[in-house]
This record gives sequence, structure tokens and C-alpha cells, in this order.
Amino acid sequence: MSELVDDLLAGKHSALARVITKIENRSPGYREIVSALHHHTGSAEIIGITGSPGAGKSTLVDKMAAQYRERGHTVGVIAIDPSSPYSGGAVLGDRIRMASNAGDMDVFFRSMSARGSLGGLSTATTDAVTALDAFGKDYVIVETVGAGQNEVDIVKTADTVAVLVPPGSGDDVQMLKAGILEIGDIFVVNKADLDGADRTVQQLREMLQGRSTAGHHGASGSEIAETDADVSESEAWEPPIVETVANRGEGVEQFLATLSDHGDYLDRTGGREQQARDRFAAEIRTLLREDANRLLAGELHRQGGLDEHVDTVMARETDPYTVVDDVLAPLRECLDEE
Amino acid sequence: MSELVDDLLAGKHSALARVITKIENRSPGYREIVSALHHHTGSAEIIGITGSPGAGKSTLVDKMAAQYRERGHTVGVIAIDPSSPYSGGAVLGDRIRMASNAGDMDVFFRSMSARGSLGGLSTATTDAVTALDAFGKDYVIVETVGAGQNEVDIVKTADTVAVLVPPGSGDDVQMLKAGILEIGDIFVVNKADLDGADRTVQQLREMLQGRSTAGHHGASGSEIAETDADVSESEAWEPPIVETVANRGEGVEQFLATLSDHGDYLDRTGGREQQARDRFAAEIRTLLREDANRLLAGELHRQGGLDEHVDTVMARETDPYTVVDDVLAPLRECLDEE
Repeated sequence: MSELVDDLLAGKHSALARVITKIENRSPGYREIVSALHHHTGSAEIIGITGSPGAGKSTLVDKMAAQYRERGHTVGVIAIDPSSPYSGGAVLGDRIRMASNAGDMDVFFRSMSARGSLGGLSTATTDAVTALDAFGKDYVIVETVGAGQNEVDIVKTADTVAVLVPPGSGDDVQMLKAGILEIGDIFVVNKADLDGADRTVQQLREMLQGRSTAGHHGASGSEIAETDADVSESEAWEPPIVETVANRGEGVEQFLATLSDHGDYLDRTGGREQQARDRFAAEIRTLLREDANRLLAGELHRQGGLDEHVDTVMARETDPYTVVDDVLAPLRECLDEE
Repeated sequence: MSELVDDLLAGKHSALARVITKIENRSPGYREIVSALHHHTGSAEIIGITGSPGAGKSTLVDKMAAQYRERGHTVGVIAIDPSSPYSGGAVLGDRIRMASNAGDMDVFFRSMSARGSLGGLSTATTDAVTALDAFGKDYVIVETVGAGQNEVDIVKTADTVAVLVPPGSGDDVQMLKAGILEIGDIFVVNKADLDGADRTVQQLREMLQGRSTAGHHGASGSEIAETDADVSESEAWEPPIVETVANRGEGVEQFLATLSDHGDYLDRTGGREQQARDRFAAEIRTLLREDANRLLAGELHRQGGLDEHVDTVMARETDPYTVVDDVLAPLRECLDEE
């Protein structure tokens, strides 16, 4: 186990791949590995990319990775598909073949899927980012499909979240209202050469102004309308909208510059530390809940199993609240004794 | 406390209202009350009504209640709005005034909202249904807005779930795909006099056939296409589609007959008992989780609070997994000792 950790820290990609497989499968020992790796984290820039299917996320991520690589940085990509039961091999193979930087192992691609619970996938993503960070990747990109609550949870792993919007129908912009508008630090209208892109940018701009006026304090609506790109004065981040044509590589450099701006903003304002604190707090709470549920399932089983309890509740001999009080009684007692 | 329970069981509506308020607010003693009431439950027919806003749920529910009342039955209605912070008084007042059976206290209306957590709202709904059942209401109707996961959880409290679909856009039918199609025992196209109603019925029928072919075993697709209303042979329930114009009372009788058919089906097949078992099992699991989380929050606080733990994780002195292991150590020890 500690050999695997040593190999990862020594920069062996095969060890990194094995660690992420253990994390994804929750294989025995994965917790100890992640614990050991945590001490080596904190230097990667973590970028989350989300948006509806067809927005062009994978193409953009490939171009980003290539650009970072050209600049001499190392990159890790975790592509999450919460709705897919498939993982690792197949999709990974496709992506590596498609990537413009195929064969360049300093871009480490890995796909993860919803094999277990979705809550579990969120935790697994956090752990996989830990592994890539400890490995020493300069940039870690977490790419996730869709805009549901689960994707929102996953993408919160990132320092900076970019939301991709395809041009056109307006439906997609509408969809953003449901939670994703709040988490975007940068919005990218990809396929900006298509009809309707200008309208999409305009719609997005209006929605973001609405968000600023409603959500932010100490800034009037009219100020905000003028300061999409100017964050230096009030130090409130107004999400810029970047236009790209990822498959031709257009706008990618400007996108990376905007990502870098947001990174600087986080450093300047202490936002990076605050976000890290919030993430660790959320992670501790989640792990506590998951572990406690496992402990309780064991305790429930030891006291006769759920089916027997349901029998007595059905017979009106007892009721759900009393069952739960009984199951938890030993825990309450031992906590009181301390 | 036991006086309040006695008054409720004696048929005093004021006691019923006070108990539901205690349940909603989680006032001290509400658990003991629900425990005591559980022993008197099991005779109410519980009906869940859901659907998108504007589908006409409240009008239909009012007409249902009036019909049941005319037949000499007693009715309780819990209207849940997970997105509203308001509760009780205001909405309740409106509904009572609007109801065709205003002033008839054998129809007991009560609205509940998302004051606490949504998980909590689901538990509170279950408890409120327990109160109405123990009170002796023949029919308990749980009405909820929307079609998200929370509404799905809430409406599962019911023996029979009816999903209301407004005629028209097709968007609404599309929306049903996301989870609500699976929980509907009966579909109601309300406002069936409007343009587009026939098309909505047709779209629904196609989707339900898709569901039957995909989801049910032992029945071929072609059989199902013919057996929308005929459940006697295979004893698989194929959700019928009922058309109503609730504000004119049209179709309400047929809807009640269909609800009754589904109740008979549940009795004949043992489905009612199985559903009750599943509900109690889910309830025990949920309560166990909620109570354990409270215990753990206390334990975390006792060991220094979340902030202190985050400090040490930020400093890389420890990591989230180790923190959680430490917090849970006393519980593990005392469970091992038993």
C-alpha cells in the first residue's frame, strides 16, 4: 500500500491509475491511501467544467489540456458521467484517441461513472482530485455532464467553475436557471460561430445581471451592467462570458486567461482558502454521514434486521420512532458515559 | 400530551390541528404523540396527487373531497408545497374558503411547507398522515406541487398515486419522463376540454406503453397495448388515463372509481401490505439517519467542533478520513464491546 503511495508520489502514472481505480471501487485500503496523499496536496489549480450534453465540453477540455501542455504544465482530467454505468476503460480509450495530445502522458485522462451511489461519486471525485493534486499535476480539470444537483455537488470540488452553454434554442439558457447559474464563475458560449450565439450571449448577460442585482450586496444594478470584466474595484467577481469555437481552437487562449484571472482573484481576496475550508467541512460532514450509516446498518442487523422490525411495526406492536430509539439506545448510552 | 392524543382519538378536530402543528414544528413531545397514534392506524385509504403547477390539483382535490363527503365518508387533505416557506394559516385559509365544502369540518384541510429540511418535510408528511389515519379519516389525500425528487419521496406516502397532466404543450409530458412516470398508478389529464388534450392523452399512452414494455416482466408489448384498463388477467396494473374537467366536476366520479379499482387491486394482490412494509422500512431508515446525524453533530461538537477540525485539515496535520475515524472511534468502541 505504502509502496503504491510512494510510486504515485514519485510520478508513476501507472500508480496514479491504480490509486484512482481503488478510489472508484472503494477497494480495501483506499482510505489510508487518500489519507496519506492529503499531506501532499494544495498546489494544483482545480477547474470544473460543466454544461448540457452537446455543449462541446470534451472538445474544449482537450484543447485546454493541449494548451497547458504547450506551456509546460502538467494536466489531469477527470470526466464524470453520473448517468453512465460504464467507467474507466472504454470511454477512457475513446478520449485518449480523440485527444489532440494522445500519447502525451503528462495529460492524464480518466473517466468515472455512477457505479455506486451518486453521493459516493461526489466523494470519489474529491478523492481522485486529491490523488492528481498529490501526484503533482499543475492543473486538474473535473468535467461533468448535465446540470442536476449531483453535477452541482461534483463540480463544487473545483476552485473555478466554468459553465458551457451551446448557442441556439434559448432552452439551454432557461435550464441554467435551475441551479447552475449560481455556481458558474465563468460562462463559455461554445460553438460561437453558429447561428444564435449572439442571442445566447445576450440572454446569458441579462440573466447574470439579474443574478448580480438579486444576489450581491453593495453593488447597484447599473454599475454591474458596465463592469462585466472589471473586478478590481469592488472585488466582487462578476462572471465573464467567453466565446469559443473549441473544435477550431478559437477563444481557448482567452478562456485560459479568464480562468487565470479568477485564480488571481481567489488568491487576492482569500477566496481560495475560504472555498477550501468550505469543501473540507462539507467533506467531513459527508464522510461522517456515510460512515455512521454503515455503523448503524450493522447495529440494526445485530438487533434483528430491518425485516423483523417492520413485522412488529406492521402488527402495531411498536412504531418506527420507538424502533429507532431502541436501535440507537446503545449509542446514546455510550456517548453519555464519556 | 396523552390528553391531546385522547382528544384526537375522540374525534376533536382542534386536537388534530394541534398535533399536526406539533409535527410540522417538531415541537417537544411530537415523537411520543406519533408513536401513540401509530397503534390506531391502518384503516385510511391514502391517495397521493401530484403534477406540475397549473395542472389543476387543488380544484380536483376539492371536488374529490366533496364527492367522498356526499357518499358519507370523512376526508383529510394535506397540501404540501416544498418550495414555499409559508405554511398553515394563510394558505389554509384560502383553501378552506375556496373549497366547495367550506365549513364542513369532516373535510380537514391542512397545508405544510418546507420550513425545515426537505427530508424533514417527507417525514413530517408521513407523521401527519398517521395523525389523520388515527383520527379515523376514511380518505387521506396528500397533494404536492411539482415533480422533483422531493415530491416523489413525499407522494410515496400514498397507497395510490395519481399524476395530473395539463393538456397542451407536450413539454409537460416530456417532463414526466424524469421520474414521475414511474410513480403514477393513475394519470389524469385535467382541463380535458382544452385544445391539445387529445394529443396529450395520446402522448401519455405511448409513454406508458414504453414503460410497460421496458419495465414489466412477463407481458409482451402487444398485449399491453390492448390492456390499458384490463388488469384482471395478468394482475399487473397498467396505469389508466382518466380525463377530467375538474372545475366543472366532469370526470371526477370516474376518477374516484379508478382510484377504488386500484385500491381493490392492491387488496387482491397483497400489494397494499407490501407497500406498507416498504414504507415502514424506508421510514425507519430515514429516522435512523436523521437521529444518528443529530447524535454525530453533538459528538463532533464535543470533540472541538467542525471549524477546529477544518483548521488541522487545512494545515495538512490530518485529513478528512482521519478526522471522521477519530470522531466515530468512541461509537465503534462501544458497539464492539456489546
